[in-house]
Amino acid sequence: MAERDRPTGATGRTNHYVVPATASTVHWGYFSRSLEPVLSVESGDFVTIETLTHHAYDDHARMIEGDPGAESVFLWSKDAKNVDRRGAGPMDASIHGRGAGEGFGVHICTGPVFVRDAEPSDVLEVRIIDVRPRGCRNPAFEGRAFGSNAAAWWGFHYNDLLTEPKPREVITIYEIDAAGARNWARAVYNYRWVPQTDPFGVVHPIIDYPGVPVDHALVEEKHGILKGVRIPVRPHFGVIALAPKEAEFVDSVPPGYFGGNIDNWRIGKGAVMHYPVAVRGALLSVGDPHASQGDSELCGTAIECSLTGTFQLILHKRDRLAGTPLADLDYPLLETQDEWVVHGFSFANYLAELGDNAQSEIFAKSSLDRAMRDAFRKMRHFLMMTRGLSEDEAISLMSVAVDFGVTQVVDANWGVHAILKKAIFAGEAG
Amino acid sequence: MAERDRPTGATGRTNHYVVPATASTVHWGYFSRSLEPVLSVESGDFVTIETLTHHAYDDHARMIEGDPGAESVFLWSKDAKNVDRRGAGPMDASIHGRGAGEGFGVHICTGPVFVRDAEPSDVLEVRIIDVRPRGCRNPAFEGRAFGSNAAAWWGFHYNDLLTEPKPREVITIYEIDAAGARNWARAVYNYRWVPQTDPFGVVHPIIDYPGVPVDHALVEEKHGILKGVRIPVRPHFGVIALAPKEAEFVDSVPPGYFGGNIDNWRIGKGAVMHYPVAVRGALLSVGDPHASQGDSELCGTAIECSLTGTFQLILHKRDRLAGTPLADLDYPLLETQDEWVVHGFSFANYLAELGDNAQSEIFAKSSLDRAMRDAFRKMRHFLMMTRGLSEDEAISLMSVAVDFGVTQVVDANWGVHAILKKAIFAGEAG
Repeated sequence: MAERDRPTGATGRTNHYVVPATASTVHWGYFSRSLEPVLSVESGDFVTIETLTHHAYDDHARMIEGDPGAESVFLWSKDAKNVDRRGAGPMDASIHGRGAGEGFGVHICTGPVFVRDAEPSDVLEVRIIDVRPRGCRNPAFEGRAFGSNAAAWWGFHYNDLLTEPKPREVITIYEIDAAGARNWARAVYNYRWVPQTDPFGVVHPIIDYPGVPVDHALVEEKHGILKGVRIPVRPHFGVIALAPKEAEFVDSVPPGYFGGNIDNWRIGKGAVMHYPVAVRGALLSVGDPHASQGDSELCGTAIECSLTGTFQLILHKRDRLAGTPLADLDYPLLETQDEWVVHGFSFANYLAELGDNAQSEIFAKSSLDRAMRDAFRKMRHFLMMTRGLSEDEAISLMSVAVDFGVTQVVDANWGVHAILKKAIFAGEAG
Repeated sequence: MAERDRPTGATGRTNHYVVPATASTVHWGYFSRSLEPVLSVESGDFVTIETLTHHAYDDHARMIEGDPGAESVFLWSKDAKNVDRRGAGPMDASIHGRGAGEGFGVHICTGPVFVRDAEPSDVLEVRIIDVRPRGCRNPAFEGRAFGSNAAAWWGFHYNDLLTEPKPREVITIYEIDAAGARNWARAVYNYRWVPQTDPFGVVHPIIDYPGVPVDHALVEEKHGILKGVRIPVRPHFGVIALAPKEAEFVDSVPPGYFGGNIDNWRIGKGAVMHYPVAVRGALLSVGDPHASQGDSELCGTAIECSLTGTFQLILHKRDRLAGTPLADLDYPLLETQDEWVVHGFSFANYLAELGDNAQSEIFAKSSLDRAMRDAFRKMRHFLMMTRGLSEDEAISLMSVAVDFGVTQVVDANWGVHAILKKAIFAGEAG
């Protein structure tokens, strides 16, 4: 029974599930409408979901060693690779030879979770009840948690460097307090990426495949960097996705109507996301955990740091949406304590808009100008549909009171978000 | 004597000037290195500057009537036009026939103020000490102040409307509390622009020339709009400019290295701006006052509302900048209580970069993608120069802790700003 249907005042029971991150509960680098669910829940249920950063192997000692879940997911030796497919590409790596799935998509996603009764055109509300860092299990680093920031080839800065060697990729390892007592992260050290040979013998001259073990004997750790700098922590999930309906395997990098890799740091504790359901059961996956990120995610990544989230899932059936803020929702919508936030992309639904080669085309069509237009249209839609404003009222309000920001410029389908403060409507009651 | 040079503990005197807005103290729609200063000050002096919105004639009764300064500036009859040149175009209106200056630039700017000893490559610091709305002088509206929001042809929305008639321009009049007791604005009414004939007989089918008297017998006022909506006020100056050196007359619309029409609502009370000086005396002008604006200024304008500001001007000589946050400054830099903000544009210095036709070319080259790149480069410069960070440190920090936002998409040279929180460096002392 869904929580909202429970008789008032009655003592009840809501299910609370736990999904650990292991090789059998994650899929790596893609979303798929055909994945077998790891769990089936009812509307109103709670789920605690462990998520792992796909950058953990940038520092095995701090982010994998001693952690059974992470060791299970990242295990890769000459003889075994626990999670073989990494990305939406071919399993035989016939395009670039990088590895199974070709790294066309990089995020370790836990799930999918099947929501009973969910059907296309319903809306799934995902309440983020809690977000906790995953403490390091290596006794050498007890009480701490770690994350990695990769200034990578897909970053906005990459072909626009001042200093030699150009270009270069740089990994910076950050430390946060696993207990959450400190609200800031600090840099521990950085190193320049040098070619790494994976256990199957493939050389990776750049960061072109996720989870490649980094041999620290080959890199030069530079300590004493960013001295005294305190990065405010903003723990959040870069990826929360429902399965898209348009393709069998969908690269996890470009975000879209189904959510996915939105990379908005506001999608953290206390936030509520709403997604249009595209396939039966919704098929929710969560991944790409971040300890912190700035608007734009300039260099390609955030502080990529394993997190555990607790979520409550509420299903809104399509025939009960009329007249609510969720009517006609065909994009991911964020609600926080004080704000509504819509997410614009270069292409609102690139999978449908860009034809048969959409999943490669989107990487050639990144545009903030287009994302700004999409954000404008979505905020106008939201104001007209949910507040009953005329188009003229909506447009004036947007110009004088809505703030547009750069969500990310690194995920192929670039993002601009628009923030509407709820307090603007505080006078309506009076 | 500059304030900073005064002997500690000595009783001193600092000049505090007042510049009212009248037909003889404003220039309309352009900046010029050749303008006669209205005032000459020394570093450390205070100046209170009245500014008028160029949209005041959208509602003469509420924004001009009974106000001697506004009446002086806006006076335009068959026989007299107190401020003839409006814009950087030809005085004979030989291009479009709109009027003197052709409306190539629209902002009423008060000034310029000459700063003694200021020379090219110095930096002028402009401290915004206070900002106050200009109360309506018409007894019918006592205690109130008003502003106009024009959803105009240069807005981002204009060719992307849903409802008929398309396209259209819509003026919304907002009211704010002149005493500043209420921190929000409310809409009073709106109307659709219809062709207006100016006193010289020129018909303006769209908003193509500033200060055209609007005949309210021709427009249909729609009251009861945006019911209960409270727009948070963010009083600020859209335009604070030093004279550019590159051209004799410079359109006031596109912002640039010299400041100008940056349209960032954070440039309000308590903010401190820093501008590179391009010409002798700096030649500071202030205009385009706004009661509020959202990031992007989507429809082309803010709540355009006359304001009076009090500023302190501090001159930093070029030979004393090394090792300070102002070293090598060649862009407008904002400092607030908690943040540093750099301003990126499609072209950092469009006047120099776009050749002889720069002032028309820039209108064809608006791009958020370019503005994002410029903001990235400027923030990197700021972090490396003022914090001594390596390029790798600066880039990682930008990705995990700097927020990039859309300043405006309506001023030809589109803007993206980057916000750096000062608290990030709080640990440096420890």
